Amino acid sequence: MKAEILCVGTELLLGDTVNTNAAYIARGLARAGVAVYHQSVVGDNPRRLREELERALKGSDLVITTGGLGPTYDDLTKETVAELFGKKLVLNEECLQKIRSFFERIGREMTKNNEKQAMMPEGAIVLDNPNGTAPGLIVEGKGKAVILLPGPPREMAAMFESRVMPYLSNQSDKTLVSRNIHVFGMGESKVESILREKMEKAENPTIAPYAKDGEMLLRVTASAKSAEEARALTQPVVKELCEILGDAVYGVDVADLQHALVEELLKKGRKVATAESCTGGLVGKRITEVAGASGVFDCGVCSYANAIKEKLLGVRHETLEQFGAVSPQTAAEMAKGVRRISGADIGVSTTGIAGPQGGTPEKPVGLVYIGIDSDVMTTVVETRLSRGYPEEREMIRYLASSRALHLALQAARMF
Amino acid sequence: MKAEILCVGTELLLGDTVNTNAAYIARGLARAGVAVYHQSVVGDNPRRLREELERALKGSDLVITTGGLGPTYDDLTKETVAELFGKKLVLNEECLQKIRSFFERIGREMTKNNEKQAMMPEGAIVLDNPNGTAPGLIVEGKGKAVILLPGPPREMAAMFESRVMPYLSNQSDKTLVSRNIHVFGMGESKVESILREKMEKAENPTIAPYAKDGEMLLRVTASAKSAEEARALTQPVVKELCEILGDAVYGVDVADLQHALVEELLKKGRKVATAESCTGGLVGKRITEVAGASGVFDCGVCSYANAIKEKLLGVRHETLEQFGAVSPQTAAEMAKGVRRISGADIGVSTTGIAGPQGGTPEKPVGLVYIGIDSDVMTTVVETRLSRGYPEEREMIRYLASSRALHLALQAARMF
Repeated sequence: MKAEILCVGTELLLGDTVNTNAAYIARGLARAGVAVYHQSVVGDNPRRLREELERALKGSDLVITTGGLGPTYDDLTKETVAELFGKKLVLNEECLQKIRSFFERIGREMTKNNEKQAMMPEGAIVLDNPNGTAPGLIVEGKGKAVILLPGPPREMAAMFESRVMPYLSNQSDKTLVSRNIHVFGMGESKVESILREKMEKAENPTIAPYAKDGEMLLRVTASAKSAEEARALTQPVVKELCEILGDAVYGVDVADLQHALVEELLKKGRKVATAESCTGGLVGKRITEVAGASGVFDCGVCSYANAIKEKLLGVRHETLEQFGAVSPQTAAEMAKGVRRISGADIGVSTTGIAGPQGGTPEKPVGLVYIGIDSDVMTTVVETRLSRGYPEEREMIRYLASSRALHLALQAARMF
Repeated sequence: MKAEILCVGTELLLGDTVNTNAAYIARGLARAGVAVYHQSVVGDNPRRLREELERALKGSDLVITTGGLGPTYDDLTKETVAELFGKKLVLNEECLQKIRSFFERIGREMTKNNEKQAMMPEGAIVLDNPNGTAPGLIVEGKGKAVILLPGPPREMAAMFESRVMPYLSNQSDKTLVSRNIHVFGMGESKVESILREKMEKAENPTIAPYAKDGEMLLRVTASAKSAEEARALTQPVVKELCEILGDAVYGVDVADLQHALVEELLKKGRKVATAESCTGGLVGKRITEVAGASGVFDCGVCSYANAIKEKLLGVRHETLEQFGAVSPQTAAEMAKGVRRISGADIGVSTTGIAGPQGGTPEKPVGLVYIGIDSDVMTTVVETRLSRGYPEEREMIRYLASSRALHLALQAARMF
């Protein structure tokens, strides 16, 4: 099956909103085995929308749109698609009822123009929207289909997972199952050089590498008549890849480093505490992104100044004098200190130079020390995270926080 | 002038990379007064790229592309554009020299295929790339122009600002100047209802509202023969809007809340300290995003557990027992506590329920208390940030952190 993605919205065209929907849908279609050759964005302009839809339907079996399903006069995606397929719009009572109860639930008044959202092309499949007022829909005709999804990413994503993915898998007699192998601390080119031959030869399952923000994801995707069968096909490949990559694999089918860490700590009944300098709270922020983090995280200290490193964390004045704040010695004492004051099982610290100012030849921008302190693992790791680009402060901080989370995960696994 | 944006890259088509470039360029074009009617994405496929370019050049004067300028065999944007304009590719010695010195600077070996990046269509304007190896270029012909920019966002953005914006303003006898009025704590519909008539009547300068993540931006854009003249035209309008919106305006032409806060504290020679519960370090993380934050921020405590609130911040056991961790009393004692231990001039605290679990009828998900303590302003603000959506944990945390930054800014202004 060939598909196009067509996002509608003047806010996208003007760049006031970044188009995360297109990427989300593209990833979903890839999982479903649907090929995407083209993405486009048009404004809230019915003529251009119609031209673009006609062009897209010429070359593709399926067009997925986002946006233009709202209650206002310039939301016209549904009307344009109905016209294109020669279908009348009729009031859908069930939709209307759901929109009404949504407004009751959030305690706001439903206005007359919200009723427009319950008008549906004849024969359309309606897709509930538990997260908003605009239902989605699927319109089929002439051997083609258009799936219309709402613009707000939260609403779109929930609808895509609950309704569009099952619809797509019903269109095919194959079911795809993807497994995600998360790799940290091994560069993309290293992973590729180890696995290139295997990746090129792989057919079912396929193996695809994705690099992002200092991490690497290997996606193993199998196709079979049932999900069980497809999953069974992935099993030996996932096992083999994990063996080849060894410690560099931090998880299979986990969400990210912070989820892997929180899950591991919950499993082991252990707690972590953070002492941050250059990351300024980012490590704690990422840990507490995970719902339920309060079971494993009591305390973080952001000791940006030396005085606070001494006073709150008990870093020795002599250590700071002799080695400086950015040093393995300070990182070690910070990790030890936050563990002591919090009573956590693992203390993790960061101290480094995020830039753009503050670097010296001996301690350049990007130099970060990560400390770990626990009963079974005490270490400091030196990392150099600068690539020499301007405006890399946030990247350095993010990569440092990832490294800290990864080390904490390794420490948690040793219990 | 009419323009299209065409982004090239299989990683965009498959959704492995979110297309932030299109939004960035679209915003820049809007600033330059260039209308954008269409954005599209194609993979690294020369035939489709050529079709898309031909289609785009039919309706537009200018096409800006990103991606496909790299050294590998599937990077073909430059070759395709040269062919389309009937221009030969010739080696540009100056480019070659610059690519060589880039590799020397980052200490990596230059491979043979990097030389391909120095091949340029005859007569093209070459755009230096201080952040990478692929130069950009502008190819003109047949009364149209194509601007080719590299794919990596950092490289693209730097080149866009330093070379593309001046090129665009040379194409026109008008200069545009935009001023940004940042509004916090007043909803989009409230702002629109106050200003609708003014916005509709405004011609030069225009007034456009943008809502994002709980904030509101009003952009005032004037067009004139010179930047000075355009800026002068914005002046009375900016002043009037600031008067109408009063305290809701937190800054004009500032980057964001955290930059406004750090700048205000630097100006006043004051410091802030954070005591975070539900935001888990996000407030500190946002403050330390600002380069130079170390001048105004020494200390943050993330007291996720009650024991840490007592031990590190000195919140009284009775307060936690009687009112609970999520209470105005606890928020007040947290702010006071972190100010005391850090010696900062302003203490700011957050305590609330980010969800999805942990809500009760009395203290529902989304209830957050923000505390402020300083010599001139001590207060606790109650906010209710849930909209009843699933998966809103990060949104609640982000909005709470914005509210905390905004209150801290108000406190800083009172010194």
